[in-house]
Amino acid sequence: MMPFEEALSAIKRGVDAILLEEDLIEKLKLGRPLQVKAGFDPTAPDLHLGHTVLINKLRQFQLLGHEIIFLIGDFTGMIGDPTGKNTTRPPLTPEEVQRNAQTYQQQIFKILDPEKTRVVFNSQWMGEMSAAALIQLTSRQTVARILEREDFSKRYKSGQPIAIHEFIYPLIQGYDSVALEADIELGGTDQRFNLLMGRELQKMEGQTPQTVITMPLLVGLDGTQKMSKSQGNYIGINEAPNEMFGKIMSISDELMWNYYELLSFKSISEIALLKEGHPREAKSSLASELVERFHGLAVAEKASQEFKARFQKGQIPSDIQEIVIHVGEEGQGIANLLKSSGLVPSTSEALRMLKQGAVRIDGERITDKNRVIKPGFEHIYQVGKRKFARVKTT
Amino acid sequence: MMPFEEALSAIKRGVDAILLEEDLIEKLKLGRPLQVKAGFDPTAPDLHLGHTVLINKLRQFQLLGHEIIFLIGDFTGMIGDPTGKNTTRPPLTPEEVQRNAQTYQQQIFKILDPEKTRVVFNSQWMGEMSAAALIQLTSRQTVARILEREDFSKRYKSGQPIAIHEFIYPLIQGYDSVALEADIELGGTDQRFNLLMGRELQKMEGQTPQTVITMPLLVGLDGTQKMSKSQGNYIGINEAPNEMFGKIMSISDELMWNYYELLSFKSISEIALLKEGHPREAKSSLASELVERFHGLAVAEKASQEFKARFQKGQIPSDIQEIVIHVGEEGQGIANLLKSSGLVPSTSEALRMLKQGAVRIDGERITDKNRVIKPGFEHIYQVGKRKFARVKTT
Repeated sequence: MMPFEEALSAIKRGVDAILLEEDLIEKLKLGRPLQVKAGFDPTAPDLHLGHTVLINKLRQFQLLGHEIIFLIGDFTGMIGDPTGKNTTRPPLTPEEVQRNAQTYQQQIFKILDPEKTRVVFNSQWMGEMSAAALIQLTSRQTVARILEREDFSKRYKSGQPIAIHEFIYPLIQGYDSVALEADIELGGTDQRFNLLMGRELQKMEGQTPQTVITMPLLVGLDGTQKMSKSQGNYIGINEAPNEMFGKIMSISDELMWNYYELLSFKSISEIALLKEGHPREAKSSLASELVERFHGLAVAEKASQEFKARFQKGQIPSDIQEIVIHVGEEGQGIANLLKSSGLVPSTSEALRMLKQGAVRIDGERITDKNRVIKPGFEHIYQVGKRKFARVKTT
Repeated sequence: MMPFEEALSAIKRGVDAILLEEDLIEKLKLGRPLQVKAGFDPTAPDLHLGHTVLINKLRQFQLLGHEIIFLIGDFTGMIGDPTGKNTTRPPLTPEEVQRNAQTYQQQIFKILDPEKTRVVFNSQWMGEMSAAALIQLTSRQTVARILEREDFSKRYKSGQPIAIHEFIYPLIQGYDSVALEADIELGGTDQRFNLLMGRELQKMEGQTPQTVITMPLLVGLDGTQKMSKSQGNYIGINEAPNEMFGKIMSISDELMWNYYELLSFKSISEIALLKEGHPREAKSSLASELVERFHGLAVAEKASQEFKARFQKGQIPSDIQEIVIHVGEEGQGIANLLKSSGLVPSTSEALRMLKQGAVRIDGERITDKNRVIKPGFEHIYQVGKRKFARVKTT
């Protein structure tokens, strides 16, 4: 194992908070593999880069010789979604949970070493628990304490309903840490409350409380909102290589350095070196690294070449007009967008150009007149041989 | 069975509220025995007259041909007391619960017909319930709804802790009604919220919601506070006949008529007749009825005779001074009380008179100098042959 100072510095990269750092140091000094837990909801197995921030940090621990416990909250999943607002989602069947868990594993093992990852389901202990034992568990916390959780307190104050069982969820998540005797639990910043619940319950059980590490939520391609499917500002980890490459190339320089911190496996010194070069090179290097991670080296190289070729083939001038167009949440049809950007005088002209194959996005020919452009992207649009515009959608 | 109008009028005597009366009428019209549920905590089997208000109403239903379900909340008892404020009571063992349940039955069967009473324990269904099923149950209600309960909302607003499991209790009580398919549930006015929870859960299960009947809380001997052991203003149903008789004789006329409504089995017309006579006669008649209920006819007659004899022997004048003395929650020692009431010039004189056997309370000689007089009583104190005072303690 690495000396703990080095380990600590690797662990601290990109984290939002460590509670408590002195506890972590003590645990690292023990010199034994630590049990590092992270919980995942089995309802949404279609991961995007936002999810991988946490998984990358788990990988970091794995590289340091610790044991990763990948907890699938199937007990939660089988009894319906707790954080639903007014509507209760239909509970998942055990078969659906198993299928989702399989999909999860296929995706996470692109980042984690399956040999060193323990996948557990919380139904193992929660499924056997009696109502009486659960009541004992709920007696451990007060209503006021749970209402401190920000989303609960907001909903309570604004009169939105909170079902009682939602109050029980932080306790179950905390109890999972007791059952697993977790040394460390990782989660997003929005999980902070639930993670701390694990600490409290472990203390009550006489266990050494877990160290809580929260990771920031990854910002999406638009540079403002958190990356999420519903915002349309995401890169799915199963996305096609060219799409993934192009999306990374479209982000701002500022966001790129943030992505380097949270998504790249390059060392701090390697990143420092990249900062001395041209941002376009760094962005291309990041795009290559991420495409390689999910599609392999050969595919990544091909995607990189194709991206460059498209730009060369289209003879895109280096200095072209930049336009920002507000397309709204739903996005805008390609014909409208071409008109708004001034590349064509009318939508009917846009439709004719599309039909003729005279429209390109980032050098790629587009003929689908139903194509919708979502907010949060930056592409080079081309109509005919001469007209170019770099359009950023918001 | 009685015609329902007559039944309804008998049921309505003394009740605080019926929710909803039209539902009750519909159920009575069915002409079948209704399932009438009342729940009891197995932790406090030492009943006083305050508890019997509810049991008397159950008897009323029994006389009308309905089935009484006497529910002992042993599931609740075995997992600790839910309404405890800061401290959690140690949970009862199954043996303690069984013993308490036995004591309960001995006491209630002085009022109810054992042949027509079904005694059930909610551990029968709650003991088998899984944590998952309990979570489903808790998903049925919102935090805001439970926080409407007056004691919860007060505690929450004043910053007193409420443990999460306390929130689950109304749901379990309500679920008991679902499990039993109760037609009617009875409880004290302070149980209104929990009783209505049964209605709501039954509706969700597609059952006809139970009619809720709340009974007022019996006022104690002091005429102001609710009867309770901790207030020291109670008559235990296992209390000695003379003590019970004397305590009834010490209450105010106003309280006596309230007791007639809630505790007597005499009909409304019999009571109307008593109101035309002397209040002392009515009080004596009530005392006889209650002593007979818990000790039998012969003992009641003896108690009545002895009470009268004490007063005759002591030759208590009919017109004596009435004094109100504030003794505080803890009560006051007899010597101090005699001094405060002006019957002796000093406590040392009081102690001497006690030693000599010259002190009587309601005609009965008192020699115990450690006797403490609690608030809420009215007795005639006598020192020597001439000095009398009617002392009411507050």
